[in-house]
Amino acid sequence: MTRPLILYPDRLLPTHGDQRVIAHRLYAEVASLPIVSPHGHTDPEWFATNAFFSNASDLLLTPDHYLLRLLYSHGVPLESLGIKPRNDHSAVVDPRSAWRVFAAHYELFRGTPSRLWLDCVFSQVFGMSVRLDSETADLYFDTINDHLVTESFRPRALFERFNIEVLATTESPLDELPHHQSIRRSGWPGRVISTFRPDPVLDPEFEGFTENLEQLSTITQEDAFDYRGYLAALRKRRAFFASLGATATDHGHPTAATADLTEAEANELFSVIAKGGANAKQAELFRAHMLTVMAEMSLDDGLVMQIHAGSFRNHNPSLFARFGRDKGADIPQATDYVHALRPLLTRFGNQRDLTIILFTLDESAYARELAPLAGHYPALKLGPAWWFHDSPNGMRRYRRQVTETAGFYNTVGFNDDTRALLSIPARHDVARRIDCAFLAELVAEHQMEEWEAMELAVDLAYRLPKRAYRL
Amino acid sequence: MTRPLILYPDRLLPTHGDQRVIAHRLYAEVASLPIVSPHGHTDPEWFATNAFFSNASDLLLTPDHYLLRLLYSHGVPLESLGIKPRNDHSAVVDPRSAWRVFAAHYELFRGTPSRLWLDCVFSQVFGMSVRLDSETADLYFDTINDHLVTESFRPRALFERFNIEVLATTESPLDELPHHQSIRRSGWPGRVISTFRPDPVLDPEFEGFTENLEQLSTITQEDAFDYRGYLAALRKRRAFFASLGATATDHGHPTAATADLTEAEANELFSVIAKGGANAKQAELFRAHMLTVMAEMSLDDGLVMQIHAGSFRNHNPSLFARFGRDKGADIPQATDYVHALRPLLTRFGNQRDLTIILFTLDESAYARELAPLAGHYPALKLGPAWWFHDSPNGMRRYRRQVTETAGFYNTVGFNDDTRALLSIPARHDVARRIDCAFLAELVAEHQMEEWEAMELAVDLAYRLPKRAYRL
Amino acid sequence: MTRPLILYPDRLLPTHGDQRVIAHRLYAEVASLPIVSPHGHTDPEWFATNAFFSNASDLLLTPDHYLLRLLYSHGVPLESLGIKPRNDHSAVVDPRSAWRVFAAHYELFRGTPSRLWLDCVFSQVFGMSVRLDSETADLYFDTINDHLVTESFRPRALFERFNIEVLATTESPLDELPHHQSIRRSGWPGRVISTFRPDPVLDPEFEGFTENLEQLSTITQEDAFDYRGYLAALRKRRAFFASLGATATDHGHPTAATADLTEAEANELFSVIAKGGANAKQAELFRAHMLTVMAEMSLDDGLVMQIHAGSFRNHNPSLFARFGRDKGADIPQATDYVHALRPLLTRFGNQRDLTIILFTLDESAYARELAPLAGHYPALKLGPAWWFHDSPNGMRRYRRQVTETAGFYNTVGFNDDTRALLSIPARHDVARRIDCAFLAELVAEHQMEEWEAMELAVDLAYRLPKRAYRL
Repeated sequence: MTRPLILYPDRLLPTHGDQRVIAHRLYAEVASLPIVSPHGHTDPEWFATNAFFSNASDLLLTPDHYLLRLLYSHGVPLESLGIKPRNDHSAVVDPRSAWRVFAAHYELFRGTPSRLWLDCVFSQVFGMSVRLDSETADLYFDTINDHLVTESFRPRALFERFNIEVLATTESPLDELPHHQSIRRSGWPGRVISTFRPDPVLDPEFEGFTENLEQLSTITQEDAFDYRGYLAALRKRRAFFASLGATATDHGHPTAATADLTEAEANELFSVIAKGGANAKQAELFRAHMLTVMAEMSLDDGLVMQIHAGSFRNHNPSLFARFGRDKGADIPQATDYVHALRPLLTRFGNQRDLTIILFTLDESAYARELAPLAGHYPALKLGPAWWFHDSPNGMRRYRRQVTETAGFYNTVGFNDDTRALLSIPARHDVARRIDCAFLAELVAEHQMEEWEAMELAVDLAYRLPKRAYRL
Repeated sequence: MTRPLILYPDRLLPTHGDQRVIAHRLYAEVASLPIVSPHGHTDPEWFATNAFFSNASDLLLTPDHYLLRLLYSHGVPLESLGIKPRNDHSAVVDPRSAWRVFAAHYELFRGTPSRLWLDCVFSQVFGMSVRLDSETADLYFDTINDHLVTESFRPRALFERFNIEVLATTESPLDELPHHQSIRRSGWPGRVISTFRPDPVLDPEFEGFTENLEQLSTITQEDAFDYRGYLAALRKRRAFFASLGATATDHGHPTAATADLTEAEANELFSVIAKGGANAKQAELFRAHMLTVMAEMSLDDGLVMQIHAGSFRNHNPSLFARFGRDKGADIPQATDYVHALRPLLTRFGNQRDLTIILFTLDESAYARELAPLAGHYPALKLGPAWWFHDSPNGMRRYRRQVTETAGFYNTVGFNDDTRALLSIPARHDVARRIDCAFLAELVAEHQMEEWEAMELAVDLAYRLPKRAYRL
Repeated sequence: MTRPLILYPDRLLPTHGDQRVIAHRLYAEVASLPIVSPHGHTDPEWFATNAFFSNASDLLLTPDHYLLRLLYSHGVPLESLGIKPRNDHSAVVDPRSAWRVFAAHYELFRGTPSRLWLDCVFSQVFGMSVRLDSETADLYFDTINDHLVTESFRPRALFERFNIEVLATTESPLDELPHHQSIRRSGWPGRVISTFRPDPVLDPEFEGFTENLEQLSTITQEDAFDYRGYLAALRKRRAFFASLGATATDHGHPTAATADLTEAEANELFSVIAKGGANAKQAELFRAHMLTVMAEMSLDDGLVMQIHAGSFRNHNPSLFARFGRDKGADIPQATDYVHALRPLLTRFGNQRDLTIILFTLDESAYARELAPLAGHYPALKLGPAWWFHDSPNGMRRYRRQVTETAGFYNTVGFNDDTRALLSIPARHDVARRIDCAFLAELVAEHQMEEWEAMELAVDLAYRLPKRAYRL
């Protein structure tokens, strides 16, 4: 039996009482504000070449580790979803077969944000009016593909239709940013900027670290195997990113550890690191030290720092060996911020011209550590609920646990953090709805007046991300 | 003044808005489904002998560590509740006196699940219509006792009246399961099965570990002091349990540590363990290794694994010395799963034929560790909110923190986990109400359709436990 | 544009459904009960001298580290708020300028409890009817100052107007309590008592520890550099505090670590401590041991023990160097109680005559550790949501996470914990509203009857603190 797909206009808003009507008024104010997307992982090539997307599976399924993760947990082989093993290119299914497997398991996503985002995309972007399941799999696949070959579904058209004011992608410091350059040269007015993500050359345990330093040397004409040359090379790459519009750096370390080594200590440690002989402790200390160095460079060049700490990457070794990174096998871990950040904060925490945006996967740190830290240090702001917590209840916990200690104005609005271009409006819409619902509760409980909530709704949806990311 | 005892039909359901009516519709669908109880601690002897229960105190008070715990915290001596000290049999009060003490303190349980369960038992099972307090203590004691000598209050009659489809008890591997055998032979169709709980022979710090190994040797005709013989003995006992209907094992380790030793390492460690000379670190490593061994055996014999980690048992030494285990002095502790489970998951986490059900007493791990792990590894499922968290708010936190990342289908329905036969329907009823309320919220917020919630309500109450436990 | 300041009579109460009307009935019962304030940091000199307060800034702004913290986090220099650097008395702004800076940033407090408390004070105590902002800054400053020179705004008048039955302050053991003595001698009937806070002589890392021991020796005529003399001195000071009405001690240790050293071990450790040569580990062990010693003394003299653990004090070294303690730079840290408290509990946890009230800044410990511990050990009770968590959502989390395992009767009612005399009624009022709302939910969900909730509302607001603190 085919079931209708209905996108209810009041989804995620309060269902009763004064807060229902207040939330509707607040949401009406922000629903169609432009999208500011200061942190994400879309592919700049899309906007550079403006090529047509190939098919539903390649666009919506295979790049989405949220989907792969949950399907895999129920025994669905990644090969059957069209994921290519690294060293075994025989075992690839065609996109339609992959889509059918996905559709047959779509009910597994009940209660998850993926389901919310996808249904919104299916309905709003592709005009579907029946639910995705085994019966409708082909209808979906064909309808989506039919759309994808039309002009209005090319990347730039979508960008414009989605009312995106600015979109930040994330690149390695070794990236020459050809697509960003090409976008600039093209005359297309869409603002697509990069973010400087130096993990490949800051983390001695990153795959290919030594080769990365070699490449860094080549690109910058500096000796990146010498500490001073290494720092000079980093400065050059930051300047290059900034010259193409980047306003931020991003750091995806396993912990939030920071350190503040002396010049001599740093030199000595780097000499071990550069030779590729660092043990786990030295690698951690180096990453820790480099966060402080990055903060120092940020004070010079104005780039906003983002620290995304606490993910145990590639937890599943055999899956990693077969398929590589980003297939849904990263697991959060308990993360200390109070002691970990102290060396950096002692050095730079009181700087008003520095902005460090903290993210966590350990919600127990919201009220205990992050809100108190951000509610004291001028340099700190709190990023939104991240990754596994980018969901209705995740966002509710975030606001409830953060606001009373850090206030609203030490937070920075929403990040969609996504590779899924199509879902960007859906994700921002969820955040706006949840924030309006939260504000409406405060108004209904007389913790604030409605005119304040109205200001805040616009702040959270639009003004704060622009201000925090210096856009 | 005697106060009426009223069991409100809409207790624990939403009190307002659309979710109220939706929840009522969902609950109507599941309220009288058969009870599937795949994990608990009732006494199989009850069903084997079908003897009358003796009196209210022995049935409802003295075996219930939830009650003992809270009463003791307010200075009520356990002796006054009829708990016999291990080496001091003089200090025993009669059951009626114990009941009176309990009744006089019943108001202490306001706001606790014990109060919900007991009022439900008092009202539904014993037909009480006034509240328990000092004034009504004797009325309760006499009424309950009067019921207990009637046919319809014998264990098998209660089992049938409660509409229990299957009930799992928990036994030591040294248990010959005479009662389960006797039940089978009796021709009574009630399905009462055991669960294989090998802590007494897997945990070198368990009381009487060496004697337990001796007994294991005797029972199995294997040399359980030799590692190969030990493994063979365990396999035999698992097979024996399975032959009497057991479908699961259970492991109550203090932490979730796992290890995957080589044959040589395991042999060497076991030679220390078997001599009774293990230190705390070796004991932990051995327990850790044996979880992986148990997973391997489960792949062979199909038994579902349950890991109940994170309880600091017998936290109160003087209470333990006087009264022994399970008197309400076990305290949860912070528990890591991400690193602890990795050795086992690296070895067997990708096995689709293996089911490992994880439980926690550390709620901070729900969204941070357990939901992400279960939302990725095919072998993992999440057990319900456990022990201290088997309560309305505990279950709400569980669903709210788990669902968005793991979905519903990586969870396994409800466990009553109880020694209290009489409370089994009450406990399942609380779980069904809370789940229906949670689902109704999702429907009212348009996160899912009501027909989906209807399916899920039945899944959570009935189908998921049967499937997950292979019943 | 000037905005009206409205204090809504139903603020923080449920906004809909049965719980709304139930909560109103409960709140009506407790709204005007006398205030019992068993833990706080007001200045006893106020009540001893009964002098007029000087001005709005000195009264409401500069002593309030909640305000300083959040303003500082947005780059507002503490100097501009009238905070005097320790060694730089030039850089002081006048109170009116400080007030204007505060008023200009008042919107930063949206969503925080400071905002709730202050608006309540502005409206109820000072009769303001417009909101604080830049435009109304001078109106506020002048109006408040005009009130402060009137009789009815002198400290004793406020104490009486606020209907405070008892107010506990907190003093060092080296304090001779001249103000408490003076209050007693004055004949004024207001009950202002001290609390014995021995950190300055128990914590080897406290500023001036050696001088403190010298002073302790002088005051008590004991040799506080000898372990036996040290203990005797402590006993004398406890007796002195008790003689002036103190009923409790308070311990602000960085962790909850306890230890139970033998006489010989303690002697040896103290000989190191007394020489001022303790390292961090020895200091921690000594603090840990002294908690057990304090419990032992409490068994003798009946003083209730409070343990406020888990604050990383003075996290910001440069701020501390410039301005000293209590300027909003204390940050909570993850805190273990299960293992940390065990030595003390093993020794004294089963004592029914001992009351130890636990506080935490680590909410993850509520349901995992603190409620189970307090729900078992007769000596333990749980203090209310503390500091950063003394807020509507903080209190809600507290009740939701604590009640099901510890019940209500292992909690001790509300502490205002404040230096801000004017905000005491506002703070107690928030707690009463949130507790009534929580109870109303339980009633509406039929988890308890309204008459029970009515009893509990009065217990939580009034009877429990009196009983727990032996007032």
